[in-house]
Amino acid sequence: MEILFTFKIKKHDELALIDEFPSASIHFDGSIDDKEVETADVIVTYGVNIDEAVLKRAKSLKWLMIASAGVEKMPLLEIAKRNILITNVRGIHKTPMAESVLAHILALKRSIPEIYAIQETKKWATKFNSTELRGSTALILGPGAIGSEIGRLLQAFGVKTIGCNRTGRSVDSMDEVISFNELLSNLPVADYVISVLPSTPETKGLLTAEHLEAMKDTAVFMNFGRGDLINEDVLVTALKNSVIGHAVLDVFEKEPLPESHEFWTLPNCTVSPHVSAKSGKYIERSLVVFKKNLKIWIENEEDFINVINPESGY
Amino acid sequence: MEILFTFKIKKHDELALIDEFPSASIHFDGSIDDKEVETADVIVTYGVNIDEAVLKRAKSLKWLMIASAGVEKMPLLEIAKRNILITNVRGIHKTPMAESVLAHILALKRSIPEIYAIQETKKWATKFNSTELRGSTALILGPGAIGSEIGRLLQAFGVKTIGCNRTGRSVDSMDEVISFNELLSNLPVADYVISVLPSTPETKGLLTAEHLEAMKDTAVFMNFGRGDLINEDVLVTALKNSVIGHAVLDVFEKEPLPESHEFWTLPNCTVSPHVSAKSGKYIERSLVVFKKNLKIWIENEEDFINVINPESGY
Repeated sequence: MEILFTFKIKKHDELALIDEFPSASIHFDGSIDDKEVETADVIVTYGVNIDEAVLKRAKSLKWLMIASAGVEKMPLLEIAKRNILITNVRGIHKTPMAESVLAHILALKRSIPEIYAIQETKKWATKFNSTELRGSTALILGPGAIGSEIGRLLQAFGVKTIGCNRTGRSVDSMDEVISFNELLSNLPVADYVISVLPSTPETKGLLTAEHLEAMKDTAVFMNFGRGDLINEDVLVTALKNSVIGHAVLDVFEKEPLPESHEFWTLPNCTVSPHVSAKSGKYIERSLVVFKKNLKIWIENEEDFINVINPESGY
Repeated sequence: MEILFTFKIKKHDELALIDEFPSASIHFDGSIDDKEVETADVIVTYGVNIDEAVLKRAKSLKWLMIASAGVEKMPLLEIAKRNILITNVRGIHKTPMAESVLAHILALKRSIPEIYAIQETKKWATKFNSTELRGSTALILGPGAIGSEIGRLLQAFGVKTIGCNRTGRSVDSMDEVISFNELLSNLPVADYVISVLPSTPETKGLLTAEHLEAMKDTAVFMNFGRGDLINEDVLVTALKNSVIGHAVLDVFEKEPLPESHEFWTLPNCTVSPHVSAKSGKYIERSLVVFKKNLKIWIENEEDFINVINPESGY
């Protein structure tokens, strides 16, 4: 079997793969423009370079291993039609993402922006409105691996956690779980509304002006899922009118966020340039997932992990 | 009995005290210059206004209720000589202080300073060296109520915690406890060295250049106890020479920190202007401690909580 990596991994990781899978012919540090695309059985990629033209060239492709979480921009219909296996690395982001979410929450609670700002002026000032996270309530939209990890950490800080998913089925580290249908009526109790939802037909535009109106005027809305969860103009208007207290956004309708976008300059909006999943351990963990599935593939088994259903998109 | 408050509390808290302790004559919203000092049995104060001259005027004083944690600047010898009961509110700072410590740690790990900085420029940039807290090791100097709470939260993040106290006696939320004598030999394993030690003859100057040399060159030193734990010139030199990675300082030899101090401008030093204990719940919690002791006093019991030994200073 032929495997093409369209991103670079460390030399010792390459050697470990060759050693562990001698029957595979692996082309490392390649590109989607390489001629190897035409003969590859497996393409290992971050996903953004896969479009219909690539699929057309990739005549032998049987498995797309995506070293990221979101697959919404991929030609899923074509992938489904050709019955190509598609797997991702969901779950490996849970530690860095949950740490980032907690970092932003605690920063706002404990006056970190103000502390950094006064250091610039070299003036001792102490009139900050620091308050405590303990005793707050967080509503977590999409409590999968990442959302549960956020919930687990928040609970350690004495925060009540309410998970919100399609069905209201129970999830780890949530004091309560509600369904999408019950979202609007539960928003008024939340101090934090945190989304880690993927982009699917069901989640696109799930939040509207009405949802923002239902939140506390001190609520912090955090989008660490996908930018199309809410119309950005609606969110800008709500922030300008202090309908909610603050937004922390790691994802946007259009990335990179254009320099002219109002999010950059709103005093009650934190722009995080889609970096919350970053971690020195990203590729290492992606390879663990890949190797598990490669072993299953080679042994002709079918119990792959992290399989994406191209029809639902998750 | 006469009670003098030298700081303001909310009206409804005043009424609750009067209601609960009808036999006490309470002078609210007073000052240390009031004539009531001369007849007060109890003075409720943040502590900084108590000196020998005040003690001389306070002829009837039997109990000093200090609504803060550190008492090192008070005339402890004179208090001991006159056998005045002295109590503080240690323990009530644990939630806000532990949240602040975690806020600073996570901010550094998850590139919060860089995220805030690029927002000022409105330029999308993602080349941050975000890493994970999980898997780190923290050494906590002075694991009392605050230190244990920091340990508990760090453990939730998958951090190994090593407590360090005088005797090495076991403490909650520490994977391991060492004594002051074993400190130097344990510093090389710590990613975070966090002090919440009070100022006592034993802790003053406890850390030296040798200790900083023993730390990892990536170690983060956090002083949330008292500024005299380490000579500041020694710390400045170590930060300039990258002997350690970063310092986060909430306390200083001299507060307010003078505008000319190098700490303000060192890129690997965060100056937090002694705000880590701040919380909207400070007075509310101080009053809970005070009322417990006042009840004990009125009932002629002696099992006071949060008693300070004026000879040891803690």
